[in-house]
Amino acid sequence: MEAMQNLSDISEVFLARGQAKPGYMWAESNSDSSPAENAKLPEMPDSSCTAKDFSSIHSKDLLPHPDGEKMTRNFLQELLGILLAYVGKTFDRSSKVLDFHHPHQLKEGLEGFSLELPDQPENLEQILVDCRDTLKYGVKTGHPRFFNQLSSGLDVIGLAGEWLTSTANTNMFTFEISPVFILMEEIVLRKMQEKVGWAAEEGDGIFCPGGSMSNLYSLLLARYDRYPEVKTGGMAELPRLALFTSEHSHYSIRKAAAVLGIGTKNVFVVKCDERGKMIPDELESCIIRAKTLGCVPFYVNATAGTTVYGAFDPLHNIADICAKHNLWMHVDAAWGGGLLMSKRHRGKLQGIERASSVTWNPHKMMGVPLQCAALLVRKKGLLQECNQLKAEYLFQPDKQYDVSYDTGDKSIQCGRHVDIFKLWLMWKAKGSEGFSMQVNRCLENAEYLFNCLSKRADFELVCNSKPEHSNVCFWYIPPSLRGVSPGPERDKRLHEVAPKIKAKMMEEGMVMIGYQPLKDKVNFFRCVFSNPATRKEDVDFLLDEITRLGCGL
Amino acid sequence: MEAMQNLSDISEVFLARGQAKPGYMWAESNSDSSPAENAKLPEMPDSSCTAKDFSSIHSKDLLPHPDGEKMTRNFLQELLGILLAYVGKTFDRSSKVLDFHHPHQLKEGLEGFSLELPDQPENLEQILVDCRDTLKYGVKTGHPRFFNQLSSGLDVIGLAGEWLTSTANTNMFTFEISPVFILMEEIVLRKMQEKVGWAAEEGDGIFCPGGSMSNLYSLLLARYDRYPEVKTGGMAELPRLALFTSEHSHYSIRKAAAVLGIGTKNVFVVKCDERGKMIPDELESCIIRAKTLGCVPFYVNATAGTTVYGAFDPLHNIADICAKHNLWMHVDAAWGGGLLMSKRHRGKLQGIERASSVTWNPHKMMGVPLQCAALLVRKKGLLQECNQLKAEYLFQPDKQYDVSYDTGDKSIQCGRHVDIFKLWLMWKAKGSEGFSMQVNRCLENAEYLFNCLSKRADFELVCNSKPEHSNVCFWYIPPSLRGVSPGPERDKRLHEVAPKIKAKMMEEGMVMIGYQPLKDKVNFFRCVFSNPATRKEDVDFLLDEITRLGCGL
Repeated sequence: MEAMQNLSDISEVFLARGQAKPGYMWAESNSDSSPAENAKLPEMPDSSCTAKDFSSIHSKDLLPHPDGEKMTRNFLQELLGILLAYVGKTFDRSSKVLDFHHPHQLKEGLEGFSLELPDQPENLEQILVDCRDTLKYGVKTGHPRFFNQLSSGLDVIGLAGEWLTSTANTNMFTFEISPVFILMEEIVLRKMQEKVGWAAEEGDGIFCPGGSMSNLYSLLLARYDRYPEVKTGGMAELPRLALFTSEHSHYSIRKAAAVLGIGTKNVFVVKCDERGKMIPDELESCIIRAKTLGCVPFYVNATAGTTVYGAFDPLHNIADICAKHNLWMHVDAAWGGGLLMSKRHRGKLQGIERASSVTWNPHKMMGVPLQCAALLVRKKGLLQECNQLKAEYLFQPDKQYDVSYDTGDKSIQCGRHVDIFKLWLMWKAKGSEGFSMQVNRCLENAEYLFNCLSKRADFELVCNSKPEHSNVCFWYIPPSLRGVSPGPERDKRLHEVAPKIKAKMMEEGMVMIGYQPLKDKVNFFRCVFSNPATRKEDVDFLLDEITRLGCGL
Repeated sequence: MEAMQNLSDISEVFLARGQAKPGYMWAESNSDSSPAENAKLPEMPDSSCTAKDFSSIHSKDLLPHPDGEKMTRNFLQELLGILLAYVGKTFDRSSKVLDFHHPHQLKEGLEGFSLELPDQPENLEQILVDCRDTLKYGVKTGHPRFFNQLSSGLDVIGLAGEWLTSTANTNMFTFEISPVFILMEEIVLRKMQEKVGWAAEEGDGIFCPGGSMSNLYSLLLARYDRYPEVKTGGMAELPRLALFTSEHSHYSIRKAAAVLGIGTKNVFVVKCDERGKMIPDELESCIIRAKTLGCVPFYVNATAGTTVYGAFDPLHNIADICAKHNLWMHVDAAWGGGLLMSKRHRGKLQGIERASSVTWNPHKMMGVPLQCAALLVRKKGLLQECNQLKAEYLFQPDKQYDVSYDTGDKSIQCGRHVDIFKLWLMWKAKGSEGFSMQVNRCLENAEYLFNCLSKRADFELVCNSKPEHSNVCFWYIPPSLRGVSPGPERDKRLHEVAPKIKAKMMEEGMVMIGYQPLKDKVNFFRCVFSNPATRKEDVDFLLDEITRLGCGL
């Protein structure tokens, strides 16, 4: 821990930072040329100005200033240099995943980089330095050795899409202000519904700010579908509702129950088997128990790809139970939905076509930049009915075009961020087949890791069966623990191993992986693959690094 | 209407589009040089490849492909050319605000631009054409003559911030994966709380996906603060709640009441005066009436800057009533919050410091790119308490840094899009004073429009008093209606004027302004100013254009 306090002292990059000037940034990741060479590059017309001094220029000199166009180009060109250097470093295995600093270090301010906000404007040279430093002290989530989150990677087409989206700077709301994006959303949602397996005459949906919100929507729709009077009358008019989700499911289901006024105690948590899959018999028992307690069961959340184990609930069995008890079946495929793009793996989601609603986050397994999360709803028109308030001062029915494309009243938001374009553009650029290959590659990496771990004595798998998704969970067993027999004492010591390795790992910054305890299992590492940049050598590197950092524990 | 079907035929730009090649785009808005000249520009090293053919290159050839770095630079450089051309056009008054097409036209596909998604990848030349066309058929929300929404403008620094955010591609969740952004959020929120007027020891907050979600949060917090048992037990454990909001307030308050299971019928709508301000006596009457009906009043939403009129509710009077009846006072300053940045105008929000929570969208009056919306909460710790579920498999308390910075459990989302950086960067680049000047200029434009309209016989103001915010509402009275005396017949005809003018306006595409009816007022135009690019000449242009398009009606 204490060693980390000195991180800023030992970081070469940090020491060099003070000298670097914006003009050099463009070529920062071009290892063939020195900064000095780059500084005099004469053949960059719109960057030639980078030799110029941004220190006398301020934001007010940019567009819309009447003479601001050239300066705006120069500034954004300079920024592009910074961003391209970052993109280059992201994929450079010799570059760090992160340059860790503690919160207090960043808050106190590092040389030339203060987070405090001024009353007076700062010049554009400082702004460019701030941009570079913001990236420098962040985490390269696109690095091939970033295994920390379900969302990783840096897709260049997706990035291009996001830059364009920011430049268009509009809202998903009405066709009037987002004609192209509104239609793209409709087309992409339709395509996703096909992948789920819904017929052409069914299916609706909306892109949401993250999978938790999609899950909230599903609960909201299920409630409204059963009890439309809840919209005006509130929960006071309803019996005590009960919903069901597995112990391995995402916490957003319980959060949504709290938000919607259903209450977390009415969320019945269904037991899972060893692999993290919901046990259908347990679901049925829970439903019966809920009824005995006077509740009215109305909703089941099945998970396709749990957060930690990557488990797929048995969707057909769950759908049978939902049909029998007349329950809304939601499938949280935030993480697993991507597998629908792969012929090889889509069978793992068999039965999803029977769901009433589906959460599917392309920003996870499909590698789309954050955020991009869809809710799909089987019943047409329900989203609109459930959420519309027909504020005519916002949605004018006497517009001169077909207003059925306006999506504002389907949403519980008002304006919505345009999350669709990057996905649409990636789909164009890769085709369905490109996504399929990408998903397959991630799962191959997981299988490779699983096979490596199976053979090693210094690691222990949390689950001994071949992973269905790209999650692989394991313990590292340091030499000091290898002879110790199972029991509370070993557990206690093993529990501390992952956090200690992680702390050192953050300090060194060459790789990132997450850990957590789960139920009776003490802290273990969870490796996930969603970055197409990751190769087998990165998996080897991860294991070597864990061994190197942990062998002394 | 029929004339609009031919828009694609008459559009010069559209006709030219087929011939343009990606390599020319860079200089598209540079009127000094012809495309031919630009195509052979030898002095652009990383763009020299733009002469190259992107038609043989696919997304798989970009990074992370081992040889993909140069191609990635070339591609993103080419994209920058497209984006810069768009930015240039955005501020060019001779360029259209939009090139309107009907939904069916866009869906059928325009030459070279199909929205359909392929199975096989498309080449990068097509991707670049798609990018250009997406912008071409969209709406330039940053154009100085776009008056259609509360969010407008295209701030270059904000844009730079958003490009960087996309490149960083991370999540507001834990300090671990967003160290810099998490701290920036804390610092910006603190600064906003200061502007609201809260003491240093109070105040918390979170950035949300839009103002509607901020309003939902406020209701959620108010309910939890009074009845913490609601989180586990749901609404079943609570008495019938009542909340209060004015007839001119945003519909998201009612939407949130529906979502939260309170029910829209428990939202008491308070009458406003002629200017759209909530009448305090009416609020008090509503509270008493709700109590008589057996409800428990718990929450009042006051609006600082209503959507249509831009009215400010009398916050001190409302705060007095809230104090008297022990109610949570929320101020929806989504639109009006920006005025807090201006010494000249912040007095209009006097009393906001007495609020329990505040919605404030910097993406509206402060010109920050979409989305950027804050919820501020006076009571420290409440957000966390209300929303946390302590999923330890997601938030590890044994991390090696101060985990109090992790914000994931404050949110009803899980991951959150990084909306903070663009605002932080703009604040750095403009300083508080820059924002102040920007707000003042928008309100000066509104006053100018108001003064123009006051003097003219062909326009009629909806409200005769000087605007407090930048909203100016008015009717255009065509010659055929000028002699007609007030009454249902005149109203009926006047109601049709704005939609007809708007339809023509969209077709011609040189300016955009919204209209709506409100209560007993028939369709009128609402002009709003939030774009610092707008000048008095643009206001003159708007009125000339309305007159030109409407004089024959």
